[in-house]
Amino acid sequence: MDETEVVRRLTKLGEEIVEEIRLEESPRIRMPQRGIGNIIFNEKKNILELGNKKSTRSFMNVAHSRKFMQTILIANKCKEFVGRDKTASIRELYYQLKHTIPGTKENTFDDQSESDPLIVDLETALGVLREELHLKADDKGTLIGRIRIEDSGDVIDCSKLGRSGLSVPSIVEHYKFMDFEADYVLVIETGAMFDRLVEERFHLKNDCIMVSTKGQAARGCRRLVHRLRNELNLPVIMFTDGDPWGYYIYSVMKAGSMALAHESRRLGTPSMNLVGMTMTDIDTYGLDKVTETLKEVDRKRIKELLQYPWFRKKQWKKELELMAKKGVRIEQQALASKSLEFVAEEYLPEKIEKKVMLP
Amino acid sequence: MDETEVVRRLTKLGEEIVEEIRLEESPRIRMPQRGIGNIIFNEKKNILELGNKKSTRSFMNVAHSRKFMQTILIANKCKEFVGRDKTASIRELYYQLKHTIPGTKENTFDDQSESDPLIVDLETALGVLREELHLKADDKGTLIGRIRIEDSGDVIDCSKLGRSGLSVPSIVEHYKFMDFEADYVLVIETGAMFDRLVEERFHLKNDCIMVSTKGQAARGCRRLVHRLRNELNLPVIMFTDGDPWGYYIYSVMKAGSMALAHESRRLGTPSMNLVGMTMTDIDTYGLDKVTETLKEVDRKRIKELLQYPWFRKKQWKKELELMAKKGVRIEQQALASKSLEFVAEEYLPEKIEKKVMLP
Repeated sequence: MDETEVVRRLTKLGEEIVEEIRLEESPRIRMPQRGIGNIIFNEKKNILELGNKKSTRSFMNVAHSRKFMQTILIANKCKEFVGRDKTASIRELYYQLKHTIPGTKENTFDDQSESDPLIVDLETALGVLREELHLKADDKGTLIGRIRIEDSGDVIDCSKLGRSGLSVPSIVEHYKFMDFEADYVLVIETGAMFDRLVEERFHLKNDCIMVSTKGQAARGCRRLVHRLRNELNLPVIMFTDGDPWGYYIYSVMKAGSMALAHESRRLGTPSMNLVGMTMTDIDTYGLDKVTETLKEVDRKRIKELLQYPWFRKKQWKKELELMAKKGVRIEQQALASKSLEFVAEEYLPEKIEKKVMLP
Repeated sequence: MDETEVVRRLTKLGEEIVEEIRLEESPRIRMPQRGIGNIIFNEKKNILELGNKKSTRSFMNVAHSRKFMQTILIANKCKEFVGRDKTASIRELYYQLKHTIPGTKENTFDDQSESDPLIVDLETALGVLREELHLKADDKGTLIGRIRIEDSGDVIDCSKLGRSGLSVPSIVEHYKFMDFEADYVLVIETGAMFDRLVEERFHLKNDCIMVSTKGQAARGCRRLVHRLRNELNLPVIMFTDGDPWGYYIYSVMKAGSMALAHESRRLGTPSMNLVGMTMTDIDTYGLDKVTETLKEVDRKRIKELLQYPWFRKKQWKKELELMAKKGVRIEQQALASKSLEFVAEEYLPEKIEKKVMLP
C-alpha cells in the first residue's frame, strides 16, 4: 500500500469523527473483533484470519473514552510520522505521546501496555500494517544469497557480503528487489545452522537465498519472506529443529498467529514447506543417539499444537504423534554427528530434490 | 594469533602427553585456575584477568580421568577444524564428539554441559581464544558506517548498506579492515536506538562507525569493537539504557566478565566511555516524566554492581547511588519524549563534543 493511501485512511478516520461531532453524535471507531471467537482458519488460503464480527469504540461510553482518546492520539502521531517520512519504534511512539493533560493530573498514557494493543486496533480498523503506519518492532534475522536489493538509494549485492550477510531491519517495505538468481528461499531457524550453511557456501552451490530467523521470526523477517515469495514467485522452504517449538515457529511464518491474525495475509507465507528436522529423519538417517529426551513442557506443547487446525493434516499429525511416542526431539545441529558437511552436502539437497517435505 | 601458532600449541599439548606416557608418568594438563580466587581486576589495564594460580588435570586421578579424556577429544577435534579451515558451533562440536566408546556402555559426552566448560579450559591452558580454535558462539549485532571490510574475498562497503547494515558474525577473526573514514565507534545497546540513529543518518553526519549489540553483546561483537579500537586506533563510546542492566552490558564490553576473565584482554575495550543514559541526564534534560520506577530486582542489581571494582570509581558510585536515591531508571528511547530527532541532533553530539561521559 502506498503512503498516500495510508494517509487517506488515517484522514478519513479523523474526518468521520469530526462529522459525528458536528452532528452531535457520539464519535466512534469501528473495528473487527480480535478475540478467539472471531479468528478463523481459512482452509483455502491456509492462513489464520479475522472473521466479520465488528466492535465499536465510542467516546461517550465511559468505559471506552480513555481508549478512544488514546487511539486518536496514536492515529494522529502516525499520520505525522508518515507525512514526515519518519519511522518510530512502538516504544518511541509511547514516549512521544506520554504527557500530562493540561489542567488535570491525568496522563495520556501511563504505560506502554496501554499503547501497544491500540496500535493493533488501529491496524485492523484501517486495514493497514503497523509498518505502513511507520511503526517498528524489534529487528532480527540475516539474509544472504544472489539477490540485489535497493535499500534507501544503495544497491546491495547480497552475494558479496562475505560470511556476514545483510542484517534484516524491522521495516522492509522500502526494499526494492532488483534482480536475483535463485530457485528458492531457505529459511533457517537457528543462527548456528545458518552459519554452517554459509560456511559450506550452500546458497551459492544450490542457488538459493538464505534467511535466518534466529528463533521466533521478527515481523521484518516474516514480511521479507512473504515478499520474496509473492514478488519473485520463489518457493519457500523452512528448516527448523525437530521439536514443538521449531514447528510453531514454522507455523507462524506460514499461517500467522492468533494474536496477529489480521496480518497473516501480509506476513504469512502459506505455500511454504518444512524440510526438517522430522521424526522420520531419526530413523532414515540413524540419528537416535543424538536425540534429546522430551521434557514435560515439550509434551504439553505437542498436545497444544495438535489442537491447531493446520497441524491436523495427516502428515503433521503423524510426526507429532511419533514425537510423543518416541519421547524425543532432535536439533538441526545433531546432523553434525554424521559430519560437519552432511547437512549441506547430503541431507538438504536430497530431501529438497526428492521433495520429502511436510506441508 | 595465526593458525600455524594455534596448531603448534595444540600439537605441543598432545606431544607432552605422549612424552609423559612414554616415561610412564601420569599424563596431565596444566591450566590457570578460573575460580573467583584467581580473578583479578587489573587496575592499570582496567580489565579483569586471571591470576597466576594453576591447577592440574591428571589422567590417573579417577576424579579427573573422564574430563581428561574429554579435553583431549576436544583438542583433537579443534586441531582438525583448524587444519581443514572449518569452523563449528560449540553445539556442533558436542554432536561431533558424542559417541559410545566401543566395547563399553560409556558415552564420551552425555550432555553439552560437559563439553562447554572444557572449551574454556582449553582456551586458558593454551592461551588461545575459542574463535582461534574455530569454535563459534551465537552471533548477534549489526554494523554500519564508512568502513570497508574484506570478508572471505568480498570487500564490503558498510556505508552502502541502506538502512540494513552488516550482520556481525560470531567469528570476526578473518575480517580485514581496508580503509575507513570515522572519528570514533559508537556502540549502542538497543536495536531500536540503532535504527533511530541510522534513520537520522547519524553515522554519516557525525563520522562514526555504529555497532548495535542488541542487548548483552555476543562475543563476535565484543571482539569486533576490540579490533576497531586497537587496529584503527578509534575511540569507542557506548550508549546504553540508564539502568543497572545497561551498565553491566557496558562493563562487560569494557572490562570483561568474571566467567571469561581469561579473554578480557582480547575481547575487552578498557578505554571505552559511556555517553548515557545517566541519572544526571534526567535533571539536565528534564526527563523525570519519562523515567520508570525501580523494581526490587533493579535495586538488588545496583547493590551488586557497587561491589565491582570498576564501578567503585567516584563518578560511577555517584550515578549508581543517585539511581537508588531517585528510585528510577531511564531508557534510551525516553529521549523520544523531546522529539524523535533530539537524540541525534542534540543529546549525543553535545555530550560527545563536550566529553560529558563516564569512565
